[in-house]
Amino acid sequence: MTVIKNKIKKMNDGSVVSPAGFQVAGIHSGVKRKRNDLGIIVCDVPATAAAMYTTNNIQAAPIKVTKESIGVEGKLQAVIVNSGNANACTGEKGERDAYAMRNEVAKTFSIKEHHIAVGSTGVIGEEMPMDKIIPSIKSLKLGKDPNDAEAFNQSILTTDTVNKSSGYEATIDGKQVRIAGAAKGSGMIAPNMATMLAFVTTDVAIDSDVLQQALRQVTDQTFNCITVDGDTSTNDMVLAMASGHAGNERLTPQHKDWSVFMEMLHRTCEDLAKMIARDGEGATTLIEAEVNGAKNRREAIKVAKSIVGSSLVKTAVFGADANWGRILAAIGYSGATIDPNTIDIFIGDVALVKESKPVTYDEKEVFERLRNDFVKITVDLHVGAEGGKAWGCDLTYDYVQINASYRT
Amino acid sequence: MTVIKNKIKKMNDGSVVSPAGFQVAGIHSGVKRKRNDLGIIVCDVPATAAAMYTTNNIQAAPIKVTKESIGVEGKLQAVIVNSGNANACTGEKGERDAYAMRNEVAKTFSIKEHHIAVGSTGVIGEEMPMDKIIPSIKSLKLGKDPNDAEAFNQSILTTDTVNKSSGYEATIDGKQVRIAGAAKGSGMIAPNMATMLAFVTTDVAIDSDVLQQALRQVTDQTFNCITVDGDTSTNDMVLAMASGHAGNERLTPQHKDWSVFMEMLHRTCEDLAKMIARDGEGATTLIEAEVNGAKNRREAIKVAKSIVGSSLVKTAVFGADANWGRILAAIGYSGATIDPNTIDIFIGDVALVKESKPVTYDEKEVFERLRNDFVKITVDLHVGAEGGKAWGCDLTYDYVQINASYRT
Repeated sequence: MTVIKNKIKKMNDGSVVSPAGFQVAGIHSGVKRKRNDLGIIVCDVPATAAAMYTTNNIQAAPIKVTKESIGVEGKLQAVIVNSGNANACTGEKGERDAYAMRNEVAKTFSIKEHHIAVGSTGVIGEEMPMDKIIPSIKSLKLGKDPNDAEAFNQSILTTDTVNKSSGYEATIDGKQVRIAGAAKGSGMIAPNMATMLAFVTTDVAIDSDVLQQALRQVTDQTFNCITVDGDTSTNDMVLAMASGHAGNERLTPQHKDWSVFMEMLHRTCEDLAKMIARDGEGATTLIEAEVNGAKNRREAIKVAKSIVGSSLVKTAVFGADANWGRILAAIGYSGATIDPNTIDIFIGDVALVKESKPVTYDEKEVFERLRNDFVKITVDLHVGAEGGKAWGCDLTYDYVQINASYRT
Repeated sequence: MTVIKNKIKKMNDGSVVSPAGFQVAGIHSGVKRKRNDLGIIVCDVPATAAAMYTTNNIQAAPIKVTKESIGVEGKLQAVIVNSGNANACTGEKGERDAYAMRNEVAKTFSIKEHHIAVGSTGVIGEEMPMDKIIPSIKSLKLGKDPNDAEAFNQSILTTDTVNKSSGYEATIDGKQVRIAGAAKGSGMIAPNMATMLAFVTTDVAIDSDVLQQALRQVTDQTFNCITVDGDTSTNDMVLAMASGHAGNERLTPQHKDWSVFMEMLHRTCEDLAKMIARDGEGATTLIEAEVNGAKNRREAIKVAKSIVGSSLVKTAVFGADANWGRILAAIGYSGATIDPNTIDIFIGDVALVKESKPVTYDEKEVFERLRNDFVKITVDLHVGAEGGKAWGCDLTYDYVQINASYRT
């Protein structure tokens, strides 16, 4: 990471309403049985927008509508999100429903249709209960209290067990700027977007194409580096909205404080990504794999993802078993350039493998590290000078239980 | 498949000793606590040989030694196999041990060293207990009774719960020919070879390069189409040995009965592959995905593998949940050419999805099919005319239990 001269500060209770210009709401519309299932973020001006979408070739109706909206002028003033129903594989009816949601938001909040994004997450293949959604959109009351943020954060969850929110502040051009985000996602989480929704708000001034580039770069090193079960959803997206209210000079890679902005965006997205991995379905442990000595960053990330994605590594971590053989095997089949004789593996700070051969270590010490709810696996490939990270979680009885009975 | 004029018959108790010229042994050497853990196949002549190996960049010592042996003249007269210890990631000591196993077989059975293959499966990273292995090799007593075959079949297993063996006979050039195989593997099973060992014997006359081509083609449609957990082992191999005792004219693709041979090889390998998938760690159900209407066979297999490899599809089958949304999602992220609007999905013979949209079906009828120990998922992509299959198993509590405590 670049050295950051300005001090970047993590906010207490940072949330999507922390940056200037944003309000939210979150309510129970009746799609889910009890918990909040409909949320909205609204900016007081059309905000500069950027988005990353699922790489799945089957994409849900809301993805189509959101792409269309952003396509018009790269701006968004609102995003409406529901949970409990993904509005995926619902054909033309599904598209009409996604447009109807957008249209209702436009009328209720006097916002142009093409300034509105739609996000949905939940069961695939069931029609949206529009009789519940439409009246509920009309009843959304915007606010920017911590309570409002919590209500929104909850409204986007499915099998998640905790709200996921984070935010940072710093100074750019002598102005205080803020960036914050909310996310959901705990299953169908794979390296290239997942049933994962993330919404990032900021008050910096920035152009849409610059924001898009920044978001792509950071997503590749954060959200695209987590995996829960290797499945890639039809509904994923990461949306970023920038109100411009901070009053800084428009940010570009040439701006002297560009690295401050990028670091804030990176930290926000990494926080959310790690929260998603930690809250993986049935998970008890967040696993971080850091790979160094790779030929390039892409390959380092490839190896790191291969490790945190291995069912055998995941079950070994669940069993607190220092099974470095499975880690080596996952490195071997990652497809990255390796030398089979130069690999070092650490759990926490304890070396298990040096030059691809086991070394003597204190089993009890390693067991203690594996029992923790955060397990760090560090690998040095010794074939280059680049590094990268990925995050995942352990594979437990509860993952099976949750997914064997999700719909029933 | 080509129309096969000759009748190919499945043998009762077909095993690696069914083809003329082969004997086996299987004993307990002490690497494992109780069960057989050391086996050998010996041919009475140097047999034409072919092999497919793991695609993992980290390969165990026995793989290296076997490649070297076959490399000399494409012939093998014996393969020595142990279970309980994979002799992987064991450095130079591991290589010396694999060579020592080969050397001991050469001395005991008066066979040239380069006519001997070595296979190992089990824990990674532990030194081979050579004090147990070497004297045990000396004590191996060859035989060709069903009991001997059973003893061998058992000696190659790790977490497998059943022996895996199959064989076929037919007539080529008026001569009776046989082909049979034994296999092991229930975890670390991924699309491109796995901790999977398979040994195919036959008495046909065939050249090594022709056998190699046949084995590659069949492996790609059988062993490489199964997945248990997506992990690819360091030790996989499929070995084929042909004694030539059947007395047929040397087989080539131009031989009038080539398709008979290929069909026999295919059925043998498919039987073994399906046994491996069905015996996947903790599995209760064999899942077969058949994909039709693909652009080409490679893409059909890609989609089929994506379906049987999805943790979410696997848990849904375990839960007898007709969750076709997860099947659609897996089709979508497979990377194959699809049209998001033309996909049909069936469970057994019941249509769940037509043109990518859910259709009404009898939930009870589908539930009954999903409760079975064999679940067939059929997909028609409607973008081409080619088809392919893949096999996997459900993901259960027992998979987690087995792998959270494998070493401890």
